[in-house]
Amino acid sequence: MPALITLTTDFGTRDSYTAQVKGVLLRRGPPDLRILDLGHEIGAQNVREGAFFLRSVVPAFPAGTIHLAVVDPGVGSARRAIAAQASGQLLVGPDNGLFGFVLGPAARVHQIALDARAAPASTFHARDVFAPAAARLACGEALAALGPQILDPVLLAWPAPHLRAAAVHGEIVHVDRFGNLISNIERAHLPSAAHARVALSGRALGEIRDHYAEAAAGGLLALFGSDGLLEIAVRDGSAAAVTGASLGSEVVVALP
Amino acid sequence: MPALITLTTDFGTRDSYTAQVKGVLLRRGPPDLRILDLGHEIGAQNVREGAFFLRSVVPAFPAGTIHLAVVDPGVGSARRAIAAQASGQLLVGPDNGLFGFVLGPAARVHQIALDARAAPASTFHARDVFAPAAARLACGEALAALGPQILDPVLLAWPAPHLRAAAVHGEIVHVDRFGNLISNIERAHLPSAAHARVALSGRALGEIRDHYAEAAAGGLLALFGSDGLLEIAVRDGSAAAVTGASLGSEVVVALP
Amino acid sequence: MPALITLTTDFGTRDSYTAQVKGVLLRRGPPDLRILDLGHEIGAQNVREGAFFLRSVVPAFPAGTIHLAVVDPGVGSARRAIAAQASGQLLVGPDNGLFGFVLGPAARVHQIALDARAAPASTFHARDVFAPAAARLACGEALAALGPQILDPVLLAWPAPHLRAAAVHGEIVHVDRFGNLISNIERAHLPSAAHARVALSGRALGEIRDHYAEAAAGGLLALFGSDGLLEIAVRDGSAAAVTGASLGSEVVVALP
Repeated sequence: MPALITLTTDFGTRDSYTAQVKGVLLRRGPPDLRILDLGHEIGAQNVREGAFFLRSVVPAFPAGTIHLAVVDPGVGSARRAIAAQASGQLLVGPDNGLFGFVLGPAARVHQIALDARAAPASTFHARDVFAPAAARLACGEALAALGPQILDPVLLAWPAPHLRAAAVHGEIVHVDRFGNLISNIERAHLPSAAHARVALSGRALGEIRDHYAEAAAGGLLALFGSDGLLEIAVRDGSAAAVTGASLGSEVVVALP
Repeated sequence: MPALITLTTDFGTRDSYTAQVKGVLLRRGPPDLRILDLGHEIGAQNVREGAFFLRSVVPAFPAGTIHLAVVDPGVGSARRAIAAQASGQLLVGPDNGLFGFVLGPAARVHQIALDARAAPASTFHARDVFAPAAARLACGEALAALGPQILDPVLLAWPAPHLRAAAVHGEIVHVDRFGNLISNIERAHLPSAAHARVALSGRALGEIRDHYAEAAAGGLLALFGSDGLLEIAVRDGSAAAVTGASLGSEVVVALP
Repeated sequence: MPALITLTTDFGTRDSYTAQVKGVLLRRGPPDLRILDLGHEIGAQNVREGAFFLRSVVPAFPAGTIHLAVVDPGVGSARRAIAAQASGQLLVGPDNGLFGFVLGPAARVHQIALDARAAPASTFHARDVFAPAAARLACGEALAALGPQILDPVLLAWPAPHLRAAAVHGEIVHVDRFGNLISNIERAHLPSAAHARVALSGRALGEIRDHYAEAAAGGLLALFGSDGLLEIAVRDGSAAAVTGASLGSEVVVALP
């Protein structure tokens, strides 16, 4: 199978940054390299949003896929560049928490040794550091060839819901393009989803539904979404707009 | 020729939905699968806009291309999932009219039998139903392997212009990113385009032109556009902004 | 190595224009053709922005890459269609300055002879003229097969900074998605960057820095950016928003 490099950035596609990275990958990678855009519209310099994106995406790919991801407000500072192997996938990017939800305890992480020929004043590590490293992995080089192993990559703490007074208390961790409000509460956090009642910022939403179609048009509902997380949605509408809720808003599931 | 799957959705690329679909295609498709983005900015849940998009696009592709398209406000309701063959192309997506302009009378349409292992409560059929079905087609499976043939897929009625009092009466069916207003009137609807005079919502636009460049900068003009449909444009500007016209606005071509 | 065609346009991806072009490339190109999106969000009909984009991008690609680029306000006018070879790359698009920064004196430029069968009234040369030409190059045809050589393609003058009274005077030539203000001043224009002091529209910005991280959060700084051009940035913010500067704003570097 030809090598595959996916791209996830906050560069957008109006500027030429993403295109320059692709050129470097093609020049330095193997001749049959495949490049696949995952998304370039991560919120500008929003590392946490990028980390949430990768948490959902990386496990969906075949083993051996190389994921090049760059959301990098600290470019040029002392933050390290890393290449890692986690759950059979390869990851290349800044060590700032961007991979903080996908680097499990079994991950192997190497710091990418900076090439002195890449201008020391480079402000564009995606092109000058990360893309060359990803291309080397695509050519079959080992992680260890890129630099020394490190044991303390930047991780992110996934907020855990907690049980209090016969209710599970969680929070909104993502708001998607449709205005769906996604919480940190998983099915496994509830002894049973049947007859559990959901409230968002104190507003009662009733029981957990199976499908969007169970609500009337414009009606709010709670259901387990595509990532296995409890989400608040409006049929044919935006739950964020209807409720005014946002990241961090409290979600409570009262157990029956 | 390696299998090719195109993607058309209203998912945008800020969220991870499109990326997850790509992962599933790569995991389940043939090793040399090619994935090609057509567009992920179809208006959210705007099935008709998606259908217009596919009407222009599908005929441009080589025979055997697999088009995975998802604009799916009814996900989780009783609407069927379909895979179809039409004019040498393969189509996979919801049976809600999204393919309503490309499923001709000769199309063969099969309902995709839902895999009981795909969570019955799935809210993400693009990843859990459509992508696996498209991957199976890419691996060479037949339509019939996906589920039973159906004879009543949801079609869309293309609005037909009509002739009345020496004039062809039509309407705006699409507004593009440049503000061009595209009508349902084709060249074949006019006995002759020479000296025919166009009016939009009662505003006279003069005769039909051959090129944008025939209008003065900022001037309105009518011409047959890239899909063979009569469109109203402003040279170096937006006809939608200048005229205030929108979907459904009346276009009348007075015959000489 | 299989043929590679890159795409750069102002079409966006909400309309079907880009997708139609891809279909034509696949139908007419070689079976193993690779298509790579570079960017479809060039400002509508902004030829100069497209030219700046290509200036940064084209040199990053492997020799033999075919770059199909379309920002084409004059479609249908007398402007010529061209295919060119420059620095080992192949370029296809309108002769309106879009390639005006990458066509050096050694470039070979051919006018694409219009096929009479492509509707003479075509308003969509990307699909009807440029894509077929790019596909022919991808199939191995020579430039000369597309049409006669021309010696006067439209070029763009890159604004040169000038030295006056112990200071280099330049201007802003691009504003990127992050609000970084990019000037036309290169490192080679300064005898030494050490202790040179930068001013933007008369506002003093201090010395030239090496990294974004050298400014306090929200602080303005000047540094040589990823294209080797002096740029004004705000750490974790938008220099365009903070300063109100835009294209053409004056940048002065006072030499020590």
